Amino acid sequence: MAIFSYKRLYAFTHSIFKNIGCTEEHAATATVGLLAADLRGIDSHGVARLSGYVRLWEAKRVNAKPGIRIVHETPSTAVVDGDAGLGLVVAPFAMQVAIEKARKVGTGWVSVRNSNHFGIAGHHAMMALEQDMIGVAMTNGSALVAPTFSIERMLGTNPIAVAIPAGNQPPFVADFATTTAANGKLEILQRKNTDAPSGWVQDKEGNPSTDANILRKQGSMLPLGGDREHGSHKGYALGSIVDIFSAVLSGASYGPWAPPFPAYVPIPENMPGEGLGHFFGAMRIDAFRPAEDFKKHMDNWIERFRLAKPAEGYEKVLIPGDPEREMESIRMKEGIPLEDSVVADLKSLAAKYSLTL
Amino acid sequence: MAIFSYKRLYAFTHSIFKNIGCTEEHAATATVGLLAADLRGIDSHGVARLSGYVRLWEAKRVNAKPGIRIVHETPSTAVVDGDAGLGLVVAPFAMQVAIEKARKVGTGWVSVRNSNHFGIAGHHAMMALEQDMIGVAMTNGSALVAPTFSIERMLGTNPIAVAIPAGNQPPFVADFATTTAANGKLEILQRKNTDAPSGWVQDKEGNPSTDANILRKQGSMLPLGGDREHGSHKGYALGSIVDIFSAVLSGASYGPWAPPFPAYVPIPENMPGEGLGHFFGAMRIDAFRPAEDFKKHMDNWIERFRLAKPAEGYEKVLIPGDPEREMESIRMKEGIPLEDSVVADLKSLAAKYSLTL
Repeated sequence: MAIFSYKRLYAFTHSIFKNIGCTEEHAATATVGLLAADLRGIDSHGVARLSGYVRLWEAKRVNAKPGIRIVHETPSTAVVDGDAGLGLVVAPFAMQVAIEKARKVGTGWVSVRNSNHFGIAGHHAMMALEQDMIGVAMTNGSALVAPTFSIERMLGTNPIAVAIPAGNQPPFVADFATTTAANGKLEILQRKNTDAPSGWVQDKEGNPSTDANILRKQGSMLPLGGDREHGSHKGYALGSIVDIFSAVLSGASYGPWAPPFPAYVPIPENMPGEGLGHFFGAMRIDAFRPAEDFKKHMDNWIERFRLAKPAEGYEKVLIPGDPEREMESIRMKEGIPLEDSVVADLKSLAAKYSLTL
Repeated sequence: MAIFSYKRLYAFTHSIFKNIGCTEEHAATATVGLLAADLRGIDSHGVARLSGYVRLWEAKRVNAKPGIRIVHETPSTAVVDGDAGLGLVVAPFAMQVAIEKARKVGTGWVSVRNSNHFGIAGHHAMMALEQDMIGVAMTNGSALVAPTFSIERMLGTNPIAVAIPAGNQPPFVADFATTTAANGKLEILQRKNTDAPSGWVQDKEGNPSTDANILRKQGSMLPLGGDREHGSHKGYALGSIVDIFSAVLSGASYGPWAPPFPAYVPIPENMPGEGLGHFFGAMRIDAFRPAEDFKKHMDNWIERFRLAKPAEGYEKVLIPGDPEREMESIRMKEGIPLEDSVVADLKSLAAKYSLTL
């Protein structure tokens, strides 16, 4: 474990993105998006994945100089073609389109095709906050999740993020995979060589499993709920909605055909669409009620929920976004701890591009 | 258990709504909405609740002749005031506003205040389908659910419904409470006098419980996920998003202040808004891509998921909406079975209004 300042990781990551051919501006956008994960404590989605993005570029699955464009639009909607660019660059472009539309007609909704992994959903949804808008972001992803009653991997962990502004209180920011646990949580257990809790994964026959390495043995992740009795059909429905909004609406590849993140995994045959898909939304608060009224009640909502009586052994009820915001403030000051394997990974990237970490 | 034809229950329910003062048209809308639950197999939300609605009217919490109106709007949004009307009447009005807006600018989003329980969310979301639109419906409700780490009831079971049209395939219709199990499921176990599965409820100290009657002993329902390790913070976030979109955006009462459905439960003091809140959305498919393309890919999506390899002991993977659609077709033909307690309840309503069941 070693600790790096945000500034140092920023400079390094920015150099890498420039080295693979990104413009100055795209490299900056991608770096801010990637490091948002490290700052917010979602370590699996930050610089730990930088070499993965580079390998996708090496495999010619990422276009470092994309011509991202709107291919269809109405006053409140658009479809954006990411031109195989980094999702980290395509997503802020599309979210900005949603925000502009919301400015004009109250809300904006943008479905994106031909993109790649976009980092953490919450980062993009949060772009709406400074505009006094509610932000929504979701994406499909490599198929790892079996629907209820199935043993076949059909869906990604398909996260949903919703960011809602408040007044004196910090914003409400929910950002979660539609599975019992995110794949990143499973990766952490793999590195620690410990078991997974029951209800996270199943083996290739569909039996409950606690083997954190079960995905390498044809097992699958489980939708939020875990099993039918505990509502896994709801997690399956949520993951499906994300897949359809992100990919069927836009013309991206969906379900089991979603292109995989690891560059060594072959692209599925007969893909029904182009690349990964995302879906973004922006809703202007004052398209519903005066922003000041809304914020006053949002503060009241948050304050009341913070005061909800905690169960014994727990200090307090958290508001979605609390842990990540606290982590960001700590890591901005004290630096970002990286595991040895991640540092080694960044060092070999540094060597490849003659950079120093 | 007795079986009633749809036609017979329709005539009876329609008479009851007219007897409490609804117009012919409102009574018809409310009847169609209420019986949609019985047809689709969500027995807890159908005529079993008819006397509950009547009691709310008797308690002057439901206005049988509401002046439902738009109080604020932009091209893609509106806030609707339900004037304390039946949610069964207010919801279709608001959904229609969303649909009209989608027709003009691509999408429409309507937040509703000063309403009451609206029956099943899926029925309202499905209004979008015949317009080649995606429909969204959600509502807040009486506080029964404790946030993660808490023992206080702060949220309703706050359902989300999303209806998505297909081509040759029937539509995708997801409709689910954001809790492990809907309250209606718990009511069924209470009537059968059997235990609830673990992960559905907790006792007043926050201990796991399998007592289906625990809500009468200050226990609470659990967010989808059940506990922190299995993602209950995600269910809590989802329920919160429904509450905020439905009530904080519109000016309805939210969180623990949501007005309760049982008329004998007093209205919370110092309500921060008016009545229950709902949130509706309509997205025109061709605001994103040609409707024919979308439907072709939606058919492909559905067909592929139906073919997902089932786990041993299961016949096939279901598409959200499959079980309810099959139930509707059976019950439309063979009639709707009602439990004895429900029949008795309807008979006393009949006596009160000098009707025959």
